[in-house]
Amino acid sequence: MKILVVNCGSSSLKYQLINMEDESVLAKGNFERIGEQEAFLTHKVNGEKYVINAPVMNHEEALKIILEQLQHKDYKVIDSLDDIDAVGHRIVHGGELFDKSVLVDEEVIRKIDECAVLAPLHNPAAILGIRACQKAMPGKPMVTTFDTAFHQTMPPENYIYPIPYKYYTEHKIRKYGAHGTSHQFVDKIAREKLGNKPDLKVVTCHLGQGASISAIKGGKCVDTSMGLSPLGGIAMVTRSGDLDPSVVTAIMEKDNLSPKETTALLNKQSGLFGICGLVPDFREIEKASFDDDKPKAKIAIEVFVQTIAQFIAKYAVQLRGLDAIVFTGGIGENQYGIRARICECLEWMGVKIDREANSVRGEEVTISTSESKVAVYVIPTNEELVIARDTKALVENK
Amino acid sequence: MKILVVNCGSSSLKYQLINMEDESVLAKGNFERIGEQEAFLTHKVNGEKYVINAPVMNHEEALKIILEQLQHKDYKVIDSLDDIDAVGHRIVHGGELFDKSVLVDEEVIRKIDECAVLAPLHNPAAILGIRACQKAMPGKPMVTTFDTAFHQTMPPENYIYPIPYKYYTEHKIRKYGAHGTSHQFVDKIAREKLGNKPDLKVVTCHLGQGASISAIKGGKCVDTSMGLSPLGGIAMVTRSGDLDPSVVTAIMEKDNLSPKETTALLNKQSGLFGICGLVPDFREIEKASFDDDKPKAKIAIEVFVQTIAQFIAKYAVQLRGLDAIVFTGGIGENQYGIRARICECLEWMGVKIDREANSVRGEEVTISTSESKVAVYVIPTNEELVIARDTKALVENK
Repeated sequence: MKILVVNCGSSSLKYQLINMEDESVLAKGNFERIGEQEAFLTHKVNGEKYVINAPVMNHEEALKIILEQLQHKDYKVIDSLDDIDAVGHRIVHGGELFDKSVLVDEEVIRKIDECAVLAPLHNPAAILGIRACQKAMPGKPMVTTFDTAFHQTMPPENYIYPIPYKYYTEHKIRKYGAHGTSHQFVDKIAREKLGNKPDLKVVTCHLGQGASISAIKGGKCVDTSMGLSPLGGIAMVTRSGDLDPSVVTAIMEKDNLSPKETTALLNKQSGLFGICGLVPDFREIEKASFDDDKPKAKIAIEVFVQTIAQFIAKYAVQLRGLDAIVFTGGIGENQYGIRARICECLEWMGVKIDREANSVRGEEVTISTSESKVAVYVIPTNEELVIARDTKALVENK
Repeated sequence: MKILVVNCGSSSLKYQLINMEDESVLAKGNFERIGEQEAFLTHKVNGEKYVINAPVMNHEEALKIILEQLQHKDYKVIDSLDDIDAVGHRIVHGGELFDKSVLVDEEVIRKIDECAVLAPLHNPAAILGIRACQKAMPGKPMVTTFDTAFHQTMPPENYIYPIPYKYYTEHKIRKYGAHGTSHQFVDKIAREKLGNKPDLKVVTCHLGQGASISAIKGGKCVDTSMGLSPLGGIAMVTRSGDLDPSVVTAIMEKDNLSPKETTALLNKQSGLFGICGLVPDFREIEKASFDDDKPKAKIAIEVFVQTIAQFIAKYAVQLRGLDAIVFTGGIGENQYGIRARICECLEWMGVKIDREANSVRGEEVTISTSESKVAVYVIPTNEELVIARDTKALVENK
């Protein structure tokens, strides 16, 4: 069974074709700048990279070229579109309407559209992707996987905000979280490593350009750091995370900003980049933090490390203890110096890591020592694989 | 030595006259609704309460009546104003200009005025109080104690917000905290109980209508939950505490609110009251939370309990361990059910309390068991006494 996984942004279309016999990736790529003259596709297959410049105007045209590439005479991975058994779509926001992946029908599309108010840039793009696939491959079974679904098991005390309740009932303002498929994926592997004992308590740290932390008990999400939107939670590379609300209104008043401008500022000009003012790139900021002439980079990295360690302890309270910590995402998988510093902050809780074991990038590895009271793992995430597996299961059980 | 402690709000003037020989309160009271026809003073002396209705137009007139009451022929505590040796003023905001109490001079008043941008309702009122005292008791030594001063020892990574740095340098937007004198007062007593060992790690929970939590190491504040303003940190009775900033902008957009209206909503209509919609009174909300017909009150109390427990663990990360937890303030001193529930959330950290010992209101008591890894104390706060002590020390050393 071969499954095409599709992840649409407003001007991009990422994809992977996965062979479910061995869960290997047959081909993958990204169509960027869709709608612009400079639109281009980067297609990767058999370790080779092909760049196709094509001024496609929409997702439909982009998908057509991608499907041609998959059948390209020189490096084809399928003979015809019949070889694609199903399509899995990543959807950013499922609101309260979706707590698991589902087979696509018109009702599902209508509900995704209903949730667009919560993800105005992403959900409409995802619908464009679904429509494009329907047109190119009529009748092909399709599944949608939601980035918020895994977090729908949170109890109300963890998703209701301490603001007038009507904002929840009338406008659905509550905590939804994000990166659900990633948290779910690495938690499952962590629990397997711990022998799948019941009610295992795991804190998963998905640390990338966007970063979120989840508290998971027995495979069920209890709490997560991102909120109504992916701006909440911990300070990220360019996003502020949670704030004293009077900081938000103070900024607006000082610079006479609209709510939209304020949200943009807090999403793109804030976080570690906001503090240090250097570049919106974690590795660069981390490098600069070792430079005595860059005290603000030092502060920025300290904020990042401390906040993550604090969230782990906070979630140990939610879980009433802790069996494992998992690091994943670009920063979590690769920046071992950061992992070491986070774990140092937690030594008082009995967290001990092995410096040697920790000195890896992008590999699945146990970095805690045998005396550590909490297991600490690095587990590379694979959101596309979760989508492909969900798609396979749903299509087979149809 | 007798010291008058003064605490001015925009339309109120609270005071205590303290005899420093035994630190006893000779008289205390509150002038409310200053500037209105319904202005009235409640004066307490020798266990009796006197209510004086007087339509005073400003703090100067109010103070005049208070000073008369202190010398009232039927229940006087001083023979003349000469018996008042000094006056101590509580100032809400000292910004970065004050990290300790100081003797009042014109330069100090100018600086308090400079900080008024950070506490526009409170600092101008405090200056009115100082001016009134200068007029009524010319040449009397005076001291100002700042609610923010204790928190000035925080390291930058704990007071710099992850937003563009210019908001700090140009507009002084940073974390300042509040309730400093209270945190300082109860921390000192806790450390005495622990034998004043060096670098003791204490988390103090000042829980009242406003509520804040501090991480204190060796008597120095390391972090505190309130932020730029007293709106930040944990969810309070009517205040939201920290939020995903996109919740703030979403509220503004939904109801077309200005920054000022939003701040008012998040200060007065939010928190536990916002969730349950009952009354802005903690005891009533707690009572309702036991009622199965009031699920939102249950959620509200659960949010309060969980958030406090989480902050304690978070601050144990900052302190790299924990020697003691202190509960103080109206809720912290009296609501033993809440204390018990907070401590239950921390059992995994080795916190154990004695239910019997915990069943007290408003008394200084150790509520942890002898096996508990962390000492847990209830310590009634006394902010006026801190002000009086600071005033005495500064006046004597003049």
